[in-house]
Amino acid sequence: MEKTSTGAFPSTMNSSEKQETVCIFGTGDFGRSLALRMLQCDYSIVFGSRNPQKSSLLPNGAAVLSYLEAAQKSDIIILAVHREHYDFLKELTEVLKGKILVDISNNLKIDQYPESNAEYLAQLLPGAHVVKAFNTISAWALQSGALDANRQVFVCGNDSKAKQRVMDVVRTLGLTPLDQGSLLAAKEIENYPLQLFPMWKLPFYLSAILCVFFFFYCVIRDILYPYANGNKDSTFRLAISIPNRIFPIAALTLLALVYLPGVIAAILQLYRGTKYRRFPDWLDHWMLCRKQLGLVALGFAFLHVLYTLVIPIRYYVRWTLKNRTITQALAKTDDPFSTTTAWLNDSYIALGILGFFLFVLLGITSLPSVSNMVNWREFRFVQSKLGYLTLILCTAHTMVYGGKKFLSPSSLRWYLPSAYVIALIIPCSVLVIKFILILPCIDKTLTRIRQGWERTSKPTSNGQHLKQSSICLDSQL
Amino acid sequence: MEKTSTGAFPSTMNSSEKQETVCIFGTGDFGRSLALRMLQCDYSIVFGSRNPQKSSLLPNGAAVLSYLEAAQKSDIIILAVHREHYDFLKELTEVLKGKILVDISNNLKIDQYPESNAEYLAQLLPGAHVVKAFNTISAWALQSGALDANRQVFVCGNDSKAKQRVMDVVRTLGLTPLDQGSLLAAKEIENYPLQLFPMWKLPFYLSAILCVFFFFYCVIRDILYPYANGNKDSTFRLAISIPNRIFPIAALTLLALVYLPGVIAAILQLYRGTKYRRFPDWLDHWMLCRKQLGLVALGFAFLHVLYTLVIPIRYYVRWTLKNRTITQALAKTDDPFSTTTAWLNDSYIALGILGFFLFVLLGITSLPSVSNMVNWREFRFVQSKLGYLTLILCTAHTMVYGGKKFLSPSSLRWYLPSAYVIALIIPCSVLVIKFILILPCIDKTLTRIRQGWERTSKPTSNGQHLKQSSICLDSQL
Amino acid sequence: MEKTSTGAFPSTMNSSEKQETVCIFGTGDFGRSLALRMLQCDYSIVFGSRNPQKSSLLPNGAAVLSYLEAAQKSDIIILAVHREHYDFLKELTEVLKGKILVDISNNLKIDQYPESNAEYLAQLLPGAHVVKAFNTISAWALQSGALDANRQVFVCGNDSKAKQRVMDVVRTLGLTPLDQGSLLAAKEIENYPLQLFPMWKLPFYLSAILCVFFFFYCVIRDILYPYANGNKDSTFRLAISIPNRIFPIAALTLLALVYLPGVIAAILQLYRGTKYRRFPDWLDHWMLCRKQLGLVALGFAFLHVLYTLVIPIRYYVRWTLKNRTITQALAKTDDPFSTTTAWLNDSYIALGILGFFLFVLLGITSLPSVSNMVNWREFRFVQSKLGYLTLILCTAHTMVYGGKKFLSPSSLRWYLPSAYVIALIIPCSVLVIKFILILPCIDKTLTRIRQGWERTSKPTSNGQHLKQSSICLDSQL
Repeated sequence: MEKTSTGAFPSTMNSSEKQETVCIFGTGDFGRSLALRMLQCDYSIVFGSRNPQKSSLLPNGAAVLSYLEAAQKSDIIILAVHREHYDFLKELTEVLKGKILVDISNNLKIDQYPESNAEYLAQLLPGAHVVKAFNTISAWALQSGALDANRQVFVCGNDSKAKQRVMDVVRTLGLTPLDQGSLLAAKEIENYPLQLFPMWKLPFYLSAILCVFFFFYCVIRDILYPYANGNKDSTFRLAISIPNRIFPIAALTLLALVYLPGVIAAILQLYRGTKYRRFPDWLDHWMLCRKQLGLVALGFAFLHVLYTLVIPIRYYVRWTLKNRTITQALAKTDDPFSTTTAWLNDSYIALGILGFFLFVLLGITSLPSVSNMVNWREFRFVQSKLGYLTLILCTAHTMVYGGKKFLSPSSLRWYLPSAYVIALIIPCSVLVIKFILILPCIDKTLTRIRQGWERTSKPTSNGQHLKQSSICLDSQL
Repeated sequence: MEKTSTGAFPSTMNSSEKQETVCIFGTGDFGRSLALRMLQCDYSIVFGSRNPQKSSLLPNGAAVLSYLEAAQKSDIIILAVHREHYDFLKELTEVLKGKILVDISNNLKIDQYPESNAEYLAQLLPGAHVVKAFNTISAWALQSGALDANRQVFVCGNDSKAKQRVMDVVRTLGLTPLDQGSLLAAKEIENYPLQLFPMWKLPFYLSAILCVFFFFYCVIRDILYPYANGNKDSTFRLAISIPNRIFPIAALTLLALVYLPGVIAAILQLYRGTKYRRFPDWLDHWMLCRKQLGLVALGFAFLHVLYTLVIPIRYYVRWTLKNRTITQALAKTDDPFSTTTAWLNDSYIALGILGFFLFVLLGITSLPSVSNMVNWREFRFVQSKLGYLTLILCTAHTMVYGGKKFLSPSSLRWYLPSAYVIALIIPCSVLVIKFILILPCIDKTLTRIRQGWERTSKPTSNGQHLKQSSICLDSQL
Repeated sequence: MEKTSTGAFPSTMNSSEKQETVCIFGTGDFGRSLALRMLQCDYSIVFGSRNPQKSSLLPNGAAVLSYLEAAQKSDIIILAVHREHYDFLKELTEVLKGKILVDISNNLKIDQYPESNAEYLAQLLPGAHVVKAFNTISAWALQSGALDANRQVFVCGNDSKAKQRVMDVVRTLGLTPLDQGSLLAAKEIENYPLQLFPMWKLPFYLSAILCVFFFFYCVIRDILYPYANGNKDSTFRLAISIPNRIFPIAALTLLALVYLPGVIAAILQLYRGTKYRRFPDWLDHWMLCRKQLGLVALGFAFLHVLYTLVIPIRYYVRWTLKNRTITQALAKTDDPFSTTTAWLNDSYIALGILGFFLFVLLGITSLPSVSNMVNWREFRFVQSKLGYLTLILCTAHTMVYGGKKFLSPSSLRWYLPSAYVIALIIPCSVLVIKFILILPCIDKTLTRIRQGWERTSKPTSNGQHLKQSSICLDSQL
């Protein structure tokens, strides 16, 4: 018991007597920065190095010894060397037995090795208590207390006492330790700093494709066409008019694509008559990045709003209005007020505003701190009920907007319909299918399936379930 | 000591050797999903069932035994059965002694039973260490790592070691355990997933009433009246004009209602001469949902802004402006520029913008993650100082807006004043009272009272304080 | 072992048997409120007082004894007295040995004493386990569960077991304990509640100066000048026109000032040929409040957007447009459509919108909860890549906006150029220098320096590194 109790106490005790010694293997930049920070927090540091003589640049107050000597000085050893060089540790097996070995290594690319560096280390030295930590923050971040992004230190390890001590060290350095459980989490922790918005890739490419396609589509209809017949130069439309056609279309389509996979999944479940069968990977991935899809859509909607609100400030618009007024004034013709137009115009604007408002609400509730405050029932209510309401409002907005255009002769150009007509296809189909799915008869079956009932019950294998995440999302949203 | 030390270690240790056995009582959907997830995380699962033969649909790799046999296999037993069936556990009292019993049950409605299921279970089996967990996440959520909303698992229990082990399990499943303290918290935890925005009900109903009332009020003034005298069809106003009267009124009134309870409470305290007397419940509840009131008000303000900014795009507005111009051009009359009008118009717009800006600031600081970053002093500064400034600006905005209308003859219709006049009543009275309250003489007494001084000091009973929360809020905001 | 095991268990156990006794020294308002809250949570409370007879106003159920007697009753003593009166504790050294002493004291101003109250207490009573807690929440907040701002209780102490017990108490009171590590953190924790937006001071003063300067500058150009020649009264411009000149200028300048220090730091590093030399303090401080600078800039940008969007609603604008139309209609002159103007006008609007959009994105990612979700690589990408793109877009926006004005004769008034010309100086210079810095040749050297290479390597002293935080920020953003 003596051993473990010391395992529990001294760490914190000494840290007050400002004398706990920590040993760092490796004198690279990160090792140095870490040592520096710890010295500032009143730890005493011993570097372990292959050739202690040659090491330069080390912060004052830090001793440099051979690996063996350094390891003996402390029972926390921080390993600031690359996985490739772990082998030298084998010789130290004896002295490292029962000590805390902190693996801070990162790899160059995701899933570079079959097992995580920390687990590899644990196999190498079964006697030592391996703890994964510090790999998520940069050498610089160590010294900075100002940025939120880098105060979190993910910690995982199999020996809870060892983990606790490392977390105490992290806290003393002014950082925030997050216990991620056992070493099983090490792989995820090591991949984390290498990711660059993984869930955003699909939404990004999707929206890129949408934008490019509709850009050329609009260029043809709104610039080439008028130039071809009438030789009018409308290139200036590239700045605002055309983006303001593309953005709403992208927003509406992406929003519909947020709800499409849920609908598809429901159909699949109905067809298979069970929830215990995994979905195709594409559907899974699609489902997992619906939140990001929605946020990108919100971005486009936001741009659409801004582009629309500046309309009356534009020189082009003012010029047009002025000239129309003047010509009419000179012609002394009268232009009676049409209540229908007023109705159409006002209501499509109102629908758009309400849709955007709900859309913003959805966006706010998807903020991590907000969604952590709501329970599952509330989250479902917001994301599915309000979500569909938003989709309905935005679709209606587009339709009523169209409502007016249909009448105008200019709707067809070179047999191409206006862009918004194409934009309506996906949302409408999603809404129609959803409407069918919530018909009592169908809904009942679906609910039973999702409560575990199976049309043909058979024992289900583990593998089949690994990707069930999709179903669960689907059943909620 | 042996016992507790094993209590501390094996959980995590084994989870690395991937062999810890967990026993699950009950083979319902949630039990199965949980088992599935745990199998994926390398736990080995034993189901306890009344008739092990008849249980089907269980994930591969999970054994099914009688309750007794299953319980013997592991020292963590997860109870996936309804509270109604807890009785069968009595027969297992012996085997469950000293084991960790995880209560994951939920009820059908809030406060369904006098005591929480977990506490009931603890009374049933005094020998077992009961821990409440997993009830806040859905069967689906268990498999999903994608949604923030459902990664949090509230854990509470009286035996800290048992609680730690369950939290380790939670972490290994990739979820985030939140220690909620002793079993006393179980009741709250069990009610949590049943709530649907409890604090939002009052604000919601209040705003609903406001909207309905002012809707009809505006319909009478702006649609029926013109129709009655002049037979003008202004129904199209229903889409934008009328909402854009209702929303600002609702926003201003709700914002005033955020600060009214604080003022009332202050008066009550002055009258009673003590802070150690509880307030009437309605006042308490009102105070506790002020944040939500404010956010709803912000929503209306946001809508008001959008509805206002689209004005120049509206067909109706453009048509009016055009016709006015034409008629004037034909009449060759001159319309001199009035600096006063420009002043009034510009300043009421400016006031509105600034008010809205501060309002948005208030909204942002009420985001959980932001308000966690600010200390009490900063929070008070923002919420009370900036809050009142916002109220002042918005009230002034409405007044100056009125400033112009007062002159116009159309202000009274069927003896009904414009809606905004009515909207001004509450905000103005709040501001006036507040102004009186911060007069030095009165403020001094109030401060002393809030520092604990009593005009007639008497020992205060516990019961009286149970609802003091109100006072504290009041004294801050 | 007996001692520590009791140290580990009873706290939580008893809290279920609702009998744990806590002792509170001091019968002030905070002590009373705390006692009240604990009584509600089924603790039994013993007050320690100099003269137990005279103490009044205490909540029912709380006993009042002499310090000595009270201390004997419990092994958790909460110290609700001011640091000045700590001396009386010396007499209690014996009875307090091995007990948990909770220091909840606050000071009147930041860094009032050389060492924190908690550390001072620890020196006074080496035998007791001192834990710092509860000082960050107000007496009122203790009773309120409604506000997020005050549920966090920072806890620090050298004895981990003692800390754990206090954190259990905190949880039982329904508050959220945050372990801040050893007593070293006490100083920071005691300063925390006294701060009032420390990092916001510099940005605030900077923007105040900017606004005042440009206010007078614009008043001279836009109000005094037209009044001097032509005797035109344009005072009404004070409400909207002039603020809408000041805000964009402030926004652009502040945004540029966010990136200026990084550029300066890079130059310094190149000049010194090492990263291991600390920066002057002003540069350090500047770097640490860049986030706040950026957010203030965003605020101004937001106001600028609103002020711009209301333009077409303004009486002044409508009147001008109308008159221009009328005069033209009467004069029957024609005003041909200029594609160039349309291009310029549309593109500067579009640039502004896109810049604002990115700016909002930056603001959202700087929300604590969001920036906690992104890893270091993503954070760098957003803050530096997107950040500079925003700066470029906004600068271009201003230039193109100028593009039109340059042509107009009114650009120079009393030899004063338009304000936006001055506003362009800083952003342009930042962009130019940055462009030079990312030239391959220079960038290579810089990168090497930041990876630890030194032109002239010498052992570096600890002191020099204490402020390295600046470099790290710089190297990232």
